[in-house]
Amino acid sequence: MRRLPLTLLAASLALATGIASAADKATVIPQAAVKTAEQLRDKAMDDNTGYKIVESLTTEVGARIAGGPNDQRARDWAVAKFKELGYDKVYTETVTYPLWERRSEHAEIVAPFPQSLSLIALGYSAGTPKGGLTAEVVKFDSLDALKKADPASVKGKIVYVTVHMERHKDGHDYGMGSGVRVGGPVIAAKMGAAGFLLRSAGTDAHSRTPHTGVTGFRDPKDAIPAAALSNPDADQLDRVLAYGKPVKVKLDLDVGFNGSYTGANVIGEITGKKHPDQVVAIGGHLDSWDPGTGAIDDGAGVAIAMAAGKMIRDLPQRPDRTIRVIAFANEEMGLWGGRAYADKHAADVGKHQLGTESDFGARKIWRMTASVKPSAVGAIEQIAKVIEPVGVAYDAKRPGGGGSDLSQMHGKGMAALTLTQDGTDYFDYHHTANDTLDKIDPKELAQNVAVYAAFSYMAAQADGDFGSAPGAFAKDGASD
Amino acid sequence: MRRLPLTLLAASLALATGIASAADKATVIPQAAVKTAEQLRDKAMDDNTGYKIVESLTTEVGARIAGGPNDQRARDWAVAKFKELGYDKVYTETVTYPLWERRSEHAEIVAPFPQSLSLIALGYSAGTPKGGLTAEVVKFDSLDALKKADPASVKGKIVYVTVHMERHKDGHDYGMGSGVRVGGPVIAAKMGAAGFLLRSAGTDAHSRTPHTGVTGFRDPKDAIPAAALSNPDADQLDRVLAYGKPVKVKLDLDVGFNGSYTGANVIGEITGKKHPDQVVAIGGHLDSWDPGTGAIDDGAGVAIAMAAGKMIRDLPQRPDRTIRVIAFANEEMGLWGGRAYADKHAADVGKHQLGTESDFGARKIWRMTASVKPSAVGAIEQIAKVIEPVGVAYDAKRPGGGGSDLSQMHGKGMAALTLTQDGTDYFDYHHTANDTLDKIDPKELAQNVAVYAAFSYMAAQADGDFGSAPGAFAKDGASD
Repeated sequence: MRRLPLTLLAASLALATGIASAADKATVIPQAAVKTAEQLRDKAMDDNTGYKIVESLTTEVGARIAGGPNDQRARDWAVAKFKELGYDKVYTETVTYPLWERRSEHAEIVAPFPQSLSLIALGYSAGTPKGGLTAEVVKFDSLDALKKADPASVKGKIVYVTVHMERHKDGHDYGMGSGVRVGGPVIAAKMGAAGFLLRSAGTDAHSRTPHTGVTGFRDPKDAIPAAALSNPDADQLDRVLAYGKPVKVKLDLDVGFNGSYTGANVIGEITGKKHPDQVVAIGGHLDSWDPGTGAIDDGAGVAIAMAAGKMIRDLPQRPDRTIRVIAFANEEMGLWGGRAYADKHAADVGKHQLGTESDFGARKIWRMTASVKPSAVGAIEQIAKVIEPVGVAYDAKRPGGGGSDLSQMHGKGMAALTLTQDGTDYFDYHHTANDTLDKIDPKELAQNVAVYAAFSYMAAQADGDFGSAPGAFAKDGASD
Repeated sequence: MRRLPLTLLAASLALATGIASAADKATVIPQAAVKTAEQLRDKAMDDNTGYKIVESLTTEVGARIAGGPNDQRARDWAVAKFKELGYDKVYTETVTYPLWERRSEHAEIVAPFPQSLSLIALGYSAGTPKGGLTAEVVKFDSLDALKKADPASVKGKIVYVTVHMERHKDGHDYGMGSGVRVGGPVIAAKMGAAGFLLRSAGTDAHSRTPHTGVTGFRDPKDAIPAAALSNPDADQLDRVLAYGKPVKVKLDLDVGFNGSYTGANVIGEITGKKHPDQVVAIGGHLDSWDPGTGAIDDGAGVAIAMAAGKMIRDLPQRPDRTIRVIAFANEEMGLWGGRAYADKHAADVGKHQLGTESDFGARKIWRMTASVKPSAVGAIEQIAKVIEPVGVAYDAKRPGGGGSDLSQMHGKGMAALTLTQDGTDYFDYHHTANDTLDKIDPKELAQNVAVYAAFSYMAAQADGDFGSAPGAFAKDGASD
């Protein structure tokens, strides 16, 4: 998933800004680098390296829930793929997180009209007692309505929250949908509810494929059973409730916390020849949710970044700075890989020239935003000019947050971009069984690689930096 | 499902014809009846009775596999609904058939790339041994390729046949797709295969919702495990096979024959005032496949026919002939309800004025075809004129087969229509979890009711018959 910072959506349109003084010497991308970036861009547009990578990951590894049976296989795949692509340095950095497992899940309406329901347990949900949990359903049309409810009216019941997400190019309804999914179970649990259901945070109104995703539970002792109904199942439950009779649902979720797990971020580098210790950080997350094969979320992101690095590696000589491609561990259950990376590299934030992660699918990038120091805005405009011919518009009025995991490094002070894909249908498939390779158009994916290769190379060759420093960009509205 | 007679598609464009002599007195619909039919049509176009019926069935009963836990509930619902709608006579006729049950199903690729597969067992499939069946997959691109294979090459293996269905308004690719599903398992079993898989007979290229449906197995001792992969899972299996390594799949299907079951066709009648023993027979089938709620297949058909009868019942006086609405038992596993009806009523075939069943979804009807005696073609043209304003074209060059179950009565000699809905997206949802109420547009359903009400009434009021007689229409190409 990609995080959509609510603060950004709600209010902040602050211009990109850093703590550095505006009197700094302007950062400039040398003309030779601009020309090479244009060539990289054009070559990448006709190259299928990115598609081959995501095809390989989703076919050979498939679904890869963090800590699950394919976690180690995915890391092995990533190490081997970086090596096969000719990366100079390949290594891993461990990431430890709570292990949450899904074993099986079933649900049914018990009364008044017995029938099964298609649902999926949410990350960090508790399991139900053996034999299932049967309770009456109490419905709310918003999270606010739940918050305002009398706790006595939900105690011992299954709270059901139904909000509808609509398709948007920037996917902004996910702020609302994921808000219900993350916050709803926690609120319901505190009010004494026995369980929690939501209408999936997804825009596919007609698919019986529920959308999973993480809840706000972090401690097993706080968790209650929580699951998402597919949109048609939520419609059905709404219709059954409309009869005005008490509706009882049985949840049978064999899921839950199971100790901790140590995985790893897998990192590949194209070593800079002039400033090997300075890095342009790009990446995606290697874990996926388990029902699909994690093609758009986030095999695509890993593939885009890996392929962009590979395009740069194939140049006659290495770039001035290092291109660091990070395949993050366990983004899905709370940015564990991103937080581990930021904790480990916080002291090196100033060495991070510029960074961003791809985690919003594989459709064409249409917008670039940036959080850089004022004296680097000219360099961003140079980048914008190179990627404008492939359909990317620079929006100078919004900050760049660095994407999901790298938002954590941006939070530490790393200058960051956000490169926004067309997310119109992203939430049709996101976190469902339908997140499979067929959702990726190789040509659209190639455009992503072109943009990542061009910007990464230009950042690596820049004469000057973008303002990364401890504590920079703290108030740009992109970090939360 | 609707049967698409291969003979019709392949060759026969014979004009509608019966055994009666062309010198018969022409059948004519009186002008008063034409006028009433026009009023019925216009009223029905703005009426939501049909939608309310299918909403009630799919909400209150839900999925209703023949012989399953909801079979009796569905029959109770139908009896109660006929009565609620004011039908004059409501009764049931028993139908006995082999009971086939689905309890659970799982599958995974075991080697070379372990991962789960989304699949659904097919009707009359055998179960696998406890603990599952693991075998190598051998792939065929057509049923012909399988037939031509050396049996030694498939013995003990899982035969996998992959053909792609495309969307068409008349749904004609289903002839090919269902041919693989029905015939493939039988051929594979005879060749000594351990199991059978197919790419779903469905046109939804991007949904992880496999399409079930019946196989050609009729005797438990001939059956092997047989299941359908969703289209994206078939794509995945194709990709894995393309690596050229042996591919092993584990099937774990807890399904199978379990004795026999006696259900019933549920029948409601609006009694004719002049010729109560002569019937216009319309209907749909009450059973559905189990993953969805059977909205388009075939709650819609039941609702269209029930609502059409109700519209006629609400006229100031009863029609001349009886309107008989039949909610058939177990169409899905081999027209059991239709065959039982035809066997029971064969001697009365001459009393069946005209008939047809709706079993191709709920989109607008765009074509009418007819199998009637030559001297009744003028009356069919009168019907055509009444339904043309709501978008139905009369194709005089093709026979009318009576729909799925009523094809059996047509086979006995009943004059029949076929009223063809727009099936462009029908095979996206058919026999899947996605066959739910949200796939029905109330306005389009109302058009169906308008057409059924208008034609049924006109047939009931006709001065003369349409040629029903034992053995009539045997060579019209519509029956198989």
